Amino acid sequence: MVSLVSTAMSPSRTNLQRLFAPRSVAVVGASAAPEKAGYQAMSALAGFTGEVFAINPKSTAILGREAFPTLRALSRPVDLVVFAVPAAGCVAAVAEAIECGSGAGLIVSGGFSESGAPGAALEAELRRLCRQSGFRLLGPNTAGFLNTRLSLTASFLPSAGLIPAGKIAVVAQSAGINLTVSFLLAKLGYGVSFAVGLGNGVDVDAADVLEFVANQQETRAIALHLEGVRDGRRLYETIQRVARVKPIVVFTVGKSDIAEFAHSHTGNLIGSYALRCSALEQAGAVLVDSTEELAVAAAALSLHRLPKKLEPGIGVITAQAGAGLAMLDLLKSRGLAVPELTAATQSRIALQLPPMTYQKNPVDTGRPGPLFSEVVSAVVEDDRIDAVIAFALSEPAALDPTEALPAVQRRASKPILFGTMGPLEEVARTVRGLCAEGFYVAQSPEELARAVSALGRDAALQARVAPLSAPGSPFTAPQVLEPPDEDTAKRALAALGIATPRRVVCSSHEAAHQAFARLEKPVVAKILAPEIEHKTELGGVCLNISSAAALDDALAQLDAIPLVSARRYLIEETAPPGLELIVSASRDPSFGPVVMVGLGGIFAEALRDTATRLAPLTLLAAQEMLEQLRAAPLLRGFRGSAQLDRGAVARSLVLLGDWLSACPNIQQIEINPLRVYPSGVLALDALLLVKSPDPAL
Amino acid sequence: MVSLVSTAMSPSRTNLQRLFAPRSVAVVGASAAPEKAGYQAMSALAGFTGEVFAINPKSTAILGREAFPTLRALSRPVDLVVFAVPAAGCVAAVAEAIECGSGAGLIVSGGFSESGAPGAALEAELRRLCRQSGFRLLGPNTAGFLNTRLSLTASFLPSAGLIPAGKIAVVAQSAGINLTVSFLLAKLGYGVSFAVGLGNGVDVDAADVLEFVANQQETRAIALHLEGVRDGRRLYETIQRVARVKPIVVFTVGKSDIAEFAHSHTGNLIGSYALRCSALEQAGAVLVDSTEELAVAAAALSLHRLPKKLEPGIGVITAQAGAGLAMLDLLKSRGLAVPELTAATQSRIALQLPPMTYQKNPVDTGRPGPLFSEVVSAVVEDDRIDAVIAFALSEPAALDPTEALPAVQRRASKPILFGTMGPLEEVARTVRGLCAEGFYVAQSPEELARAVSALGRDAALQARVAPLSAPGSPFTAPQVLEPPDEDTAKRALAALGIATPRRVVCSSHEAAHQAFARLEKPVVAKILAPEIEHKTELGGVCLNISSAAALDDALAQLDAIPLVSARRYLIEETAPPGLELIVSASRDPSFGPVVMVGLGGIFAEALRDTATRLAPLTLLAAQEMLEQLRAAPLLRGFRGSAQLDRGAVARSLVLLGDWLSACPNIQQIEINPLRVYPSGVLALDALLLVKSPDPAL
Repeated sequence: MVSLVSTAMSPSRTNLQRLFAPRSVAVVGASAAPEKAGYQAMSALAGFTGEVFAINPKSTAILGREAFPTLRALSRPVDLVVFAVPAAGCVAAVAEAIECGSGAGLIVSGGFSESGAPGAALEAELRRLCRQSGFRLLGPNTAGFLNTRLSLTASFLPSAGLIPAGKIAVVAQSAGINLTVSFLLAKLGYGVSFAVGLGNGVDVDAADVLEFVANQQETRAIALHLEGVRDGRRLYETIQRVARVKPIVVFTVGKSDIAEFAHSHTGNLIGSYALRCSALEQAGAVLVDSTEELAVAAAALSLHRLPKKLEPGIGVITAQAGAGLAMLDLLKSRGLAVPELTAATQSRIALQLPPMTYQKNPVDTGRPGPLFSEVVSAVVEDDRIDAVIAFALSEPAALDPTEALPAVQRRASKPILFGTMGPLEEVARTVRGLCAEGFYVAQSPEELARAVSALGRDAALQARVAPLSAPGSPFTAPQVLEPPDEDTAKRALAALGIATPRRVVCSSHEAAHQAFARLEKPVVAKILAPEIEHKTELGGVCLNISSAAALDDALAQLDAIPLVSARRYLIEETAPPGLELIVSASRDPSFGPVVMVGLGGIFAEALRDTATRLAPLTLLAAQEMLEQLRAAPLLRGFRGSAQLDRGAVARSLVLLGDWLSACPNIQQIEINPLRVYPSGVLALDALLLVKSPDPAL
Repeated sequence: MVSLVSTAMSPSRTNLQRLFAPRSVAVVGASAAPEKAGYQAMSALAGFTGEVFAINPKSTAILGREAFPTLRALSRPVDLVVFAVPAAGCVAAVAEAIECGSGAGLIVSGGFSESGAPGAALEAELRRLCRQSGFRLLGPNTAGFLNTRLSLTASFLPSAGLIPAGKIAVVAQSAGINLTVSFLLAKLGYGVSFAVGLGNGVDVDAADVLEFVANQQETRAIALHLEGVRDGRRLYETIQRVARVKPIVVFTVGKSDIAEFAHSHTGNLIGSYALRCSALEQAGAVLVDSTEELAVAAAALSLHRLPKKLEPGIGVITAQAGAGLAMLDLLKSRGLAVPELTAATQSRIALQLPPMTYQKNPVDTGRPGPLFSEVVSAVVEDDRIDAVIAFALSEPAALDPTEALPAVQRRASKPILFGTMGPLEEVARTVRGLCAEGFYVAQSPEELARAVSALGRDAALQARVAPLSAPGSPFTAPQVLEPPDEDTAKRALAALGIATPRRVVCSSHEAAHQAFARLEKPVVAKILAPEIEHKTELGGVCLNISSAAALDDALAQLDAIPLVSARRYLIEETAPPGLELIVSASRDPSFGPVVMVGLGGIFAEALRDTATRLAPLTLLAAQEMLEQLRAAPLLRGFRGSAQLDRGAVARSLVLLGDWLSACPNIQQIEINPLRVYPSGVLALDALLLVKSPDPAL
């Protein structure tokens, strides 16, 4: 296993270990009154393999543990302090814990930033204490965490201790979702290695926990739940790193407008859902849409992980064609490949099955018989297939999957997942039998398809994630220090490698006429001044100039615009017609440099047809952004029109992202429109927002 | 209850009763050999309350029932004959059953149209026999059906008899899906009143079964599964009628391209998925996307049905904010209303809950306590709320939902659905307790949201379905008997009430010049000939004519086009610029008259942004088609441009649909473009395909 934690650990890293894998725990506010959180915390710790101390000024023993009046009264520092005290008392309690040498704490109370300004101030103070000392704090506003290897239930929900141990780490922003997903896993027959609700995440965030569970030997897959993301770039980089060694599935909310309620929950802003989803997938996390599928996908990935592959092939075997259709439809609508089996495999299957059913993939076996496992073998051994799903309604007289499948799986190097439904006790028996053999067993056709789609998607995403090191090709970022005019912006684009129309900057009418004579007609005449952002609205753009007289009219129109800077004109060749896109690079407050592409004109915005990813981008990622647009058919050459140069658009996207990443003073680059031709592109207008150098420096 | 079956029943209706509610059943091909279908059919009939006869030439008794050599040997006709014989023998066997006075049959064998031409010929012969005699046939290629009130398992899957009795009718095209959904219902804690797989549907189809189950007193909700639909219009009308009295939920496949496999399954063509979904919703069926949700939605609707309402309000109560967010996001992204509670309700809740959580809707209760049921009462009594969902993780110490909720529900006139998750045994206890009290109990936040969204969607659809009788407003359909030229088509549109540009038909250059003088400039000159469908490609359209000289040039160009009919010109005013749509009415082979709208130009097709519904349309349905377009913001007035006349577009859609419905000889009407203005629309070009009257008549 690759170790992701460096050997020389910072205090903050060491304290993260003390938080999630403590040798000793103290409960501040421990209580013998069953209705108190301090009682629940103590009773939840009953099974913990390490030391437990109760802190209560009025008792000498609580729940059979020695009680101390204060943390100070303990002879030595504890790793983890559980604070079962109200919000108002937390700052002082944390300060005392730091003073006593504790490494970490956990605050269950609400009443912080989710409830208004005074709570936010408390949170800021807690954050300051942590930053200053390296103390790690989970919460506030969390129900805690489980570390099943240590039998540690650091939680206020006593039943959390009933979640079985297993191989899946659940990392949830919300305590409620943490428990929901953990119990859904239990219902599916799986358990957790670790489970946490982050709450307000004043200090410890999802990225921290991912680092921790990536190094837990017992964790085989990670189920992640996110609402808002405060430091998106750090999370992105962490997922990118961790997902290489352990598969990550993520469920995030925000398809619709839920911002107000979300803020009331953990005090976080929800941010753009589309950008968050893009970034998570780009980092290599498998996106799902519900707590149920989070459990299904994580469970499947805890059992199997496919080698990375751009387009893994799924083999589908079904004893009921209707179920096969439902699975095929789900897989294909998610973009998974269900390739036709090789001729050799089809011949092999034809020996087993009567010629009445479909056998190309899906393979419809009809009523399953003793040859079912032979068919599964044939499909799993097909070169085009990377994972197999097999569905059959429970018919013990015809097929015992617990007999038939394990032998096939032992001979196969690729995963076989099984799905069934039928009389509940028969199904329960099959689930138990096959789970014990390491199978994923789904209880509906769609659950089975979702489980294998997690495997396929993970493999496809891993084949796409960018290398961790910066791209090797030399990249010289054009420097732009002042807010540029259009010509300067276009020269920078040209230096970057994005073509622009031929043009001449002119300071006089005479120069404009000379330029007109040299350029191909018709030309465009524009006012050129860095202070003007929206030339068209001011009458600063004159199109379609074919004669000297028309040029004079145009110049007269441009001369009527009041200016601060010296009057200059841009005389530019008219670009041939083509499809217009908008492409841009900008900085998101959470995720940093971001690249966007959409259809130009009002359509991009009105039709909400844009694709967004984090920079830097790989060329493949840029190409896939174009495929993601609804307008993609227009680029592929629609209705007999020529195929357009998608490669040139993709290269432009990569370049814009690299440029923004390399130049911290550039806030935004927007090319609108970028005109696209069968060969090449032309940037017809460019807007570049730069931060002026601070005059004080 | 409204009876949907007329009192004087046709033989075909009577025989449908004999099929699904028989008093006597005979098994042709009954067998004592357990591996034979004829054995399974006999043993599945063991519990049947009516008479059972075995037909086998070589035995005198099978499974304790008297055996007869042939159907003829029985002294009297049986209602239902189960044919456990291979495909090749079925035609003769059915003919014999008809001769003996049986009412109905059921064929399990495959080997019919799903397997090629010889099988299709057998099917055609079976269909002919049924049509001729009124005999009703289920299948072939089906596993049969259950009628739980009669303890009748007419099926070859013995375990089908383990599906519990209940209030839900399952009507599936596929036998496998029928069993999958029935067992999923059992897993949720519900049972079926009736369950059938239609197989190839040579005679009895989904519409027939819907008529039957609509009249079953014990059926409270219907779960429908469809692959292709042969007679879509009949199904549409049946659903429209049945869904008024019993809620229908439907799952249909075909989001992605699965046509080849689908055809191999039941020999049906899959048709357009988008049109099928549109038609099903328009008829009043709640669409879902999986077998799992089919079970969830049907179960919820078997317990509760909301009064019809355009926008029912959902109240959401949650003890865990994270779960609340997941539910809110799911509901809102499906277009369900989660309205802010009234001030009075909010004040009432504020008396129960500390001011730390969100209380507007969703209501976040925090850790539930004794006041949880008071909060549920407050929300359910809010005037803006039509149904309530409440989610709480299992915490028996804090809340016993089986104690708290039934009392609230008894006082309330609106449904309350509950959701929970937690230690499996605790959850199972809650589910059992609340199910016994008539509650829907979900086991995840999303399942709970899906269950209530079925209630909301059903109420919203019922508020939209068109009245059963034809609309009262008088409608005079313009008659078009011959394939019309553009002017004739436009005159028909104008007579219908859709405005067209001012224009003059001219037979000479002189007349064209006179028209030019009278019309507003610039004008358009077009060749006018019914035989030309695509004028533009032939140079038959000259735009932007502002001078007499330009008109002469244009006429010369039009004169160069070879024609069969007399040479005429259409001189037409140029329409002002505006947003261009394409609107059309056409005939779908399965669903009949269909109306479509999309963005004009290449965008509609390239961006796949169109909306389709069956004609006749209500005005509300036509308006909602426009809202369904991604391009909807452009019609609403995008970025400061004027709001466009959506009412006029909607009226045009209604008129086109009514027109096509009234004129059987019209095959298609397409207006492309329909230009839309802040006030009114203009049909700039019109294509009308009519069937010429048969010259032989």
